[in-house]
Parts: sequence; structure tokens; C-alpha cells
Amino acid sequence: MTMYLPERVLVSPSGFKESLSAVDVADSIAAGVRRVLPGVRVDLYPVPDGGEGTVEILAQRPGTVTHTTKVTGPVGRKVTATWLEFPDESVAVLEMASAAGLSLVPRDLRDPTATTTRGVGELIATILDHGVDRIVVGCGDSGTSDGGAGALTALGARILDDEGNEIRAGGGELARAVRIDTANLHPRLGEVEITLACNIHNVLTGSTGVAQVFGPQKGATKKQVKQLGKALNRWADLLTETFSPDADLHLGAGSGASGGLGAGIMALGATARDRFDVLLGDLPSAADLDDLVAGADLVITAEGAIDFQTPRGKVPAEIARRAQATGVPVLALAGSLGKGAPQVHEVGIGAIASIMTVPMALEDAVRDGRQLLIDAAERALRLLMLGCAVSGRREETVRSQFTPA
Amino acid sequence: MTMYLPERVLVSPSGFKESLSAVDVADSIAAGVRRVLPGVRVDLYPVPDGGEGTVEILAQRPGTVTHTTKVTGPVGRKVTATWLEFPDESVAVLEMASAAGLSLVPRDLRDPTATTTRGVGELIATILDHGVDRIVVGCGDSGTSDGGAGALTALGARILDDEGNEIRAGGGELARAVRIDTANLHPRLGEVEITLACNIHNVLTGSTGVAQVFGPQKGATKKQVKQLGKALNRWADLLTETFSPDADLHLGAGSGASGGLGAGIMALGATARDRFDVLLGDLPSAADLDDLVAGADLVITAEGAIDFQTPRGKVPAEIARRAQATGVPVLALAGSLGKGAPQVHEVGIGAIASIMTVPMALEDAVRDGRQLLIDAAERALRLLMLGCAVSGRREETVRSQFTPA
Repeated sequence: MTMYLPERVLVSPSGFKESLSAVDVADSIAAGVRRVLPGVRVDLYPVPDGGEGTVEILAQRPGTVTHTTKVTGPVGRKVTATWLEFPDESVAVLEMASAAGLSLVPRDLRDPTATTTRGVGELIATILDHGVDRIVVGCGDSGTSDGGAGALTALGARILDDEGNEIRAGGGELARAVRIDTANLHPRLGEVEITLACNIHNVLTGSTGVAQVFGPQKGATKKQVKQLGKALNRWADLLTETFSPDADLHLGAGSGASGGLGAGIMALGATARDRFDVLLGDLPSAADLDDLVAGADLVITAEGAIDFQTPRGKVPAEIARRAQATGVPVLALAGSLGKGAPQVHEVGIGAIASIMTVPMALEDAVRDGRQLLIDAAERALRLLMLGCAVSGRREETVRSQFTPA
Repeated sequence: MTMYLPERVLVSPSGFKESLSAVDVADSIAAGVRRVLPGVRVDLYPVPDGGEGTVEILAQRPGTVTHTTKVTGPVGRKVTATWLEFPDESVAVLEMASAAGLSLVPRDLRDPTATTTRGVGELIATILDHGVDRIVVGCGDSGTSDGGAGALTALGARILDDEGNEIRAGGGELARAVRIDTANLHPRLGEVEITLACNIHNVLTGSTGVAQVFGPQKGATKKQVKQLGKALNRWADLLTETFSPDADLHLGAGSGASGGLGAGIMALGATARDRFDVLLGDLPSAADLDDLVAGADLVITAEGAIDFQTPRGKVPAEIARRAQATGVPVLALAGSLGKGAPQVHEVGIGAIASIMTVPMALEDAVRDGRQLLIDAAERALRLLMLGCAVSGRREETVRSQFTPA
């Protein structure tokens, strides 16, 4: 019997939140694959999604320079944020989560009416001073819901209440904002192209807005969700009134990115674009993802949790979309398979598998994530190869029926 | 591209202890397979292993009669045990676990020095009175470690201490036994062939004996393990002295079956044999397992927990052994994948997969076992089919390289 096995495997995963970065996920899957097929060619293409790990992934591309800057974190403490420069193209990429991400907000301080994107503004100001032609703001994994008010303040805006005093930080305060003083905005803002790399399905206001959808995840109570919804609506009004932007800051694509940072930055003239179009397309890359996909016999993607949200623009769905053009089989591994996980088959993911092996607590799964993932990749490859064996045996049977004995 | 998919799948699992019987496991896997391949032929052959579920499985064979008998349970309370008759062959099969199984011992009464196999003896006596030529005693899942003393008592033996009084029930008491009065043994015992269908690797005494290996599982403390080890050793001496059997009751094959029930019954002339040779071989069957295996494109087996013990004579190992003759690919599904699970690849199981999807508690996994297993079978089949697709695409590529354009 002839067995036809994969010779080229592309590993193109997302990170596992609070456990493994996308780079770690890719390395772990590759290790599991090589246990079963030691001679196989494995291409690694961890996928930046704008959120945590984006700068780490892009830093692997040739010719990049990584910078670190101390900025104000989401709860006021200083944090060290990293950003990336492509000097030849005069482009900088920052990851909003490195200045205002949810993982920077201690659990006991998870109040999305109070956290601030001030650090993101400080980072943008630093890059403006450094001098590039274009800034890409990676969105995702934010711990804030201040509509970008903190960022605007750091860039020189003064947000005033009805007595002319500056309001305090946080989305909750925005209900009191009546005027924005733009006299001292950073002078280079008009000279630089700013692109938001975001999930363009996220909008600022309404029933699918920031407060409703992400507030609870970030620790908001029911009352706070309502309060925040009103405040952000008022904030969108005020931003529109003040800056007269082309974009719709209430319900426009990307206005709700990163707790409304999208709306705040779009008010300054930034453009919101699909994160994958920007991060996998515009930026200089060592390899073309679509070429790698087309050349692979198998694509393995992964996400921390695969569930009903995965088909809506998450990394595995994006990889499956790109694989469908050439029909390359796609396997998705997951830390956990939640409600609605099988819906991913509808967007082109052929098979899914979890890293879980025994009843265990979440903390244990997170702690042992790397080993569990290596083992899961091994198991999945063995099962896939069993399919190759079944196929080879079936083919032999069918052929023998058409061949005279 | 031509895809060669499986057309015949054989589902041949063990039960999942305390969750699903082997029949339920087989049905659940078949349901998952049919979700993916609705037209596939699925043969079901749940595998009796002598333990719980054995009578349920064998009862599906044609021409069998199921009997129920009230007997003394392992902690003294009455239980209803079932046994099976093949009238045409004059064979009866009983499942020791239905009279003295671990699941009949409440958690707060798990003291293997005290539980008794009396009910097993009562069951044998009932069958002797009923009248058959041969009795098969299915071993496995016992909650006792009394060396079969309870069973012997129920069959008419009197086990006496140094003052000539009968000792109490339980393995712990055996240290006090000095003589066995055999005057009133059941008269038909000599006329009937008794076969133990057991794991022949289980021996009564020594470092791999009943007390050491199974005592702790059945709830024995360290002190009790030691006490029980000594008592069972003395019991083997006394049995040998009294009955002068051909078999070695200390370290002979099967002497440790079901907490030493093996030794007790072997003292009466019974033969210990590999459970699969007896239950899948000797007994009349609707279908020949080896024929089903040979005709399948894929064999799916399963066990509640796959771990380092699985290769040592558990159901998936037996199925893999039978599949190796014809090279049919074998997949094993498991409730959980424990330590050493990958060792099963060495005995011919090509791939393994767990039913786990998310971090969860054992109780939840047990409660939702059926649904989790159906879903797991679906996922495994999809992954296997992805392998068929990879194989088909590779074949096409290879062929195109040898065909002039």
C-alpha cells in the first residue's frame, strides 16, 4: 500500500490568552507535528491580530527595530510598552494592549468606567516625536472603555466639564464632558497617517456597542454597563461636534475598537481597517501568507477558545478563508472547545481538537498549556495519518476491483 | 481529486466505568460517526471483559436466556444479580461484579478487609441447582479481596479458626483460618466445568498481588494492605493444603482475579483463562469479531481511561492485537487520557483522542459522558477525513509529476 502523507505543514495560529503567545503556540504545534513526522517541512506563521503578541510576532520580520517606552498604564501605574519600527518604510506599529491591555488591570481593579488609554496616547506622542510617516495602532485585548479619551488627553486635548474643569480619567466620567479644547494638540498629528488595525465589526454605541458587549468581560456591573453606554454615546456626539470627522463615530466600522479607542483616534483623522488586511497585507513581510497556504498540504491554526465567536473574524476563520481558494485542508487546535464550536466547519475548518486530556481545572490547563498543546498536536497528526492510512487501503481495494487478477 | 473514505467502520469498545456501559459507548460512537458519514456501514461489537456489563453485552447474542437471582451483596445487603444461559450449549455465564462489584460498595463502606464474595457463591449454587454443564465466571470490577472465601462458604465449605468456630466474612479474617471443613460442599461441584474468564496477569500474593495492587483502589489503608497481604498468603496455603489443586494458588495465572476469587474457585477445580479467549472465542456468537475486524476500513475502540495499564490486556489492546493481522487502522477514544497513554501506540493503536473539550470536573464529565462521546467521535472522524483529503491531494500531486502535461 502506498501512503500519501503531508510533506509541507503550515502552522498559523493565534495566541492562547493568558497562557501562550502566538509564537509559543506555533512552536509547540510544530514540536508535536515533528514527533510524528520528523522529516516534514513545517512553516511557522503565527498570526498577529492587533492584540497581545502582535509586536512580538511582527518583530520577527527582517529589518524591524523594537523600541520600549514607559507610559501610564490603564490603572495609573507606569508600564513598559513596546512598539516596532520598520525604518525603511517609515512605519511604526504599536499594540494598544501593551499600554492599556486587560492583562495590565489587576482583577480587583477591573472597573471599565475608570481605566484609561492615556498610555496609548503617550505612546503615539513618543512615536510622533520620533518621526515616522505612518502609525499602525494594533487594537485588541484592551482593558479600557474610555472611548480613547485618555489617549486624546495625552496628545494634548483638554476634556472639560460644564464648569471648564478637566474631567478625570475613565469612561464613566465622559457623561460630564461638554467641551474639548484642541488648542494644544500634538503638532505632528496632521502630518502622519494613522491606521487602526482592528476588528471592524466593533462599534462604539447601540445594542452591539462597547458597553453592552465588552463591558461585562472587563468587569462592569449591569448598572455600570448602562452608565457607560450613555457616557460613550455622549462622547461620540462631542467628538463628532468637535472634530467633524469623515467617519461615523457612533456606529462606524471600528469605532468600538479597543473600548472606543477607535472612535477617539478616528476623530483625529485615523482610518479603521480590518486588522488582517493591515497586519498580513500592508506591512513588509518575510513570507507571503497566501503563498505559504497554497504550498501546504495541511494548515494547522489554533485559538485559545474556539466557540461561536470564532467564525466572526477570529484568526482560525481568517486562515480558513485564505485556505479555501486552493482547498488546502485546515485543522484548528484549541485550548477549549466552547459552545457552538462546530460552527467553524461552516467557514472552512475541516476538523477541530482540544488540548484537554482529563478532567482538570482551568488554572492547570493554563499552567501546562505548552505541554498539553504539544501532545494535542501529536495526537491530531496521528489521527490525520490514520486517515491517510484508511484512504490508502481504500484506494488499493477500489483499484484491485478494476484490475484483472 | 478522488477521496477514498471509509465504507465500513467497526465500533468495538469497552464500557466507561461509572458512566456508560459498553453497549452505550458503542451506540454513542456510532451516532458520532454517522453525523459525519451518514452512509457508512457501522458494525457494533461492544467487548465483554468479564467485568460490569459483560452479561448485558452477551445477552444480545441470539438464543440466550437472562436470569435474575437475589444474593448477598459485598457489604451484606441483598442485591439482584443477573446471569445468562446459553441453553443449547448448556453454558451459564455470571458476572461476579453483579454480586460483589465495587459499585455495590457504598463509598463510606469501602473496606476490602471486610467485603465478601458470598453472593458469587450463592449465584454459582443457584446455577448448579438449575443444571448446566459449564459455568463461566466473569471476573473484573470486584469490590472484594476475600480470596473467594465468601463464595466457598456459600457453596458449603466451613472455614474454621483454631477453636473450631467459623470465621467472619472478609479478607481480614483469613489470617485466623486454620482449617476448611469440606464435608458439605455442593454435590454438583465435581460434575460441572467451571471457567474463570479473567485477566490472567492477576496473581494472589507477592509484590504484584491482590493486596498490593488492588487494595488501595478498593479503599484499603497502608496498614490494611499489609494485613491483607499476610492473610491472603495464609489463605493460599490453607486452600492448597485442603484441596491439593493442580493450579498454583499463590502466583498462578488468574489466582488474583477479582480479589482472589480466582484462587478460591480454582481450589475447587476451576480453570483460569484469558477473558477474551473465553468471552470472544468459546461462547456462541452472532458474529465473529476477527471477521468484522478484517472487513472494516477502520476500527474504533474505547475505554474510560487510557493510560499505561491499557497495553496490559485491556479491551483497546485486545482489539488492536486482533487488527494487526490484517493491518486495519485502529482509533481509540477515551474518557480521559492518563499517564503513559501514548504507550498504546506500541501495541498497534494508531491514534487516540479524549472526549474532554474544556476544563471540567470529573462529575460533569461522567454526567455528560454520552454527549461528550458522540461529539468526540464526530471530531475524530472529521480529523480522520481531513487525513483522507490530505492523502488524496498528495496523491494527485505525485501522479501529476509522473504524467506528461
